[in-house]
Amino acid sequence: MTSDQSEHTLSDTEENIMEATHTALLKHGYADLSIARIGDELDRSKSSIYHYYESKDDLLITLLEFTVNKFESALDAERSQNPAETLKQLIAKLLVPDPPEDDYQFQTVLVGFRSQAVTNSRIRAQFTRVDERLADTIREILERGIAENVFEDVNASEVTEYILATINGGIYTRVTTDRVDAVTATHSMLVSYIDSELIQDAV
Amino acid sequence: MTSDQSEHTLSDTEENIMEATHTALLKHGYADLSIARIGDELDRSKSSIYHYYESKDDLLITLLEFTVNKFESALDAERSQNPAETLKQLIAKLLVPDPPEDDYQFQTVLVGFRSQAVTNSRIRAQFTRVDERLADTIREILERGIAENVFEDVNASEVTEYILATINGGIYTRVTTDRVDAVTATHSMLVSYIDSELIQDAV
Repeated sequence: MTSDQSEHTLSDTEENIMEATHTALLKHGYADLSIARIGDELDRSKSSIYHYYESKDDLLITLLEFTVNKFESALDAERSQNPAETLKQLIAKLLVPDPPEDDYQFQTVLVGFRSQAVTNSRIRAQFTRVDERLADTIREILERGIAENVFEDVNASEVTEYILATINGGIYTRVTTDRVDAVTATHSMLVSYIDSELIQDAV
Repeated sequence: MTSDQSEHTLSDTEENIMEATHTALLKHGYADLSIARIGDELDRSKSSIYHYYESKDDLLITLLEFTVNKFESALDAERSQNPAETLKQLIAKLLVPDPPEDDYQFQTVLVGFRSQAVTNSRIRAQFTRVDERLADTIREILERGIAENVFEDVNASEVTEYILATINGGIYTRVTTDRVDAVTATHSMLVSYIDSELIQDAV
């Protein structure tokens, strides 16, 4: 399965496999994950997994896409009428200093998986794609805000990359250091940036 | 050797071992690095390495400290009289979109090593320490700028974490994705932030 195919909508079976992969990852971590262990979380034999996926990395690449889809659907469902509020919701979801245990665990797994992007071109292509999708989401919110005169007429592409880099840096800090206060400060500064630099002053 | 001991000044032998470790890392990468391969880069037998370091991780933890020391000395040597210029130099060094091959290689190694901070408490403590030191450096530049009325009277600690998260996110993006333009945009936005938000308006 190439990463391009992950464009398609997942069947119920594939969704079940994704949920099982997620559960097995949280239990065993990336290094100790195996298709057998994913099979343990499923009602069907592990051979059915091989029907869809050739390897652990195949599964994780699809899981990443599946997770971004879920994240974006959740964001769409809660999307406020106000672009500034929508942007703050997105930042709060990704940069909450004290995330639920499962979300934190999943982020730790992603850091291990993402570190392999350095040498594995498929994993690199998938993280490039994940970041492109997050950037697209942020850019759309910014462009909507500019069109509606909520935001100043900033360079939406540059501001998008700046916000995304800050979010990624904050997540990386939370997962790889004990500097929890740094994440809180980063979150609070990003919100200040939106309030003071992006939102148009009331007339 | 505990990470606390890395406070001490390295002897010439230790410095030679650090240079050899750095060279071996660039040649073989983190996963394939071994003390034997570091020994190959040294004029002395590998048993002398064991006199100082117990394991590959010991060596890398010290190398990290050694690298931060070198980075800070280089920054000190070039330090401009102007805090805004000094801050921009620091950001340019860490966030240059197209770094020299050796620097890029070293950053890729660090991403692999840092991903282990999730499960290895010594590695986590060392990256916490590295980020603390970078944060201290940035905060000192900000505080000097505020005292000299070059910068606005901002919350130096919060601004520090914001800048550091953005730098870390930019480095992480460069090493784990193909989104080179994102790094360029992040760098350029950080410079704009300094110009428009930190530097006091000329009277």
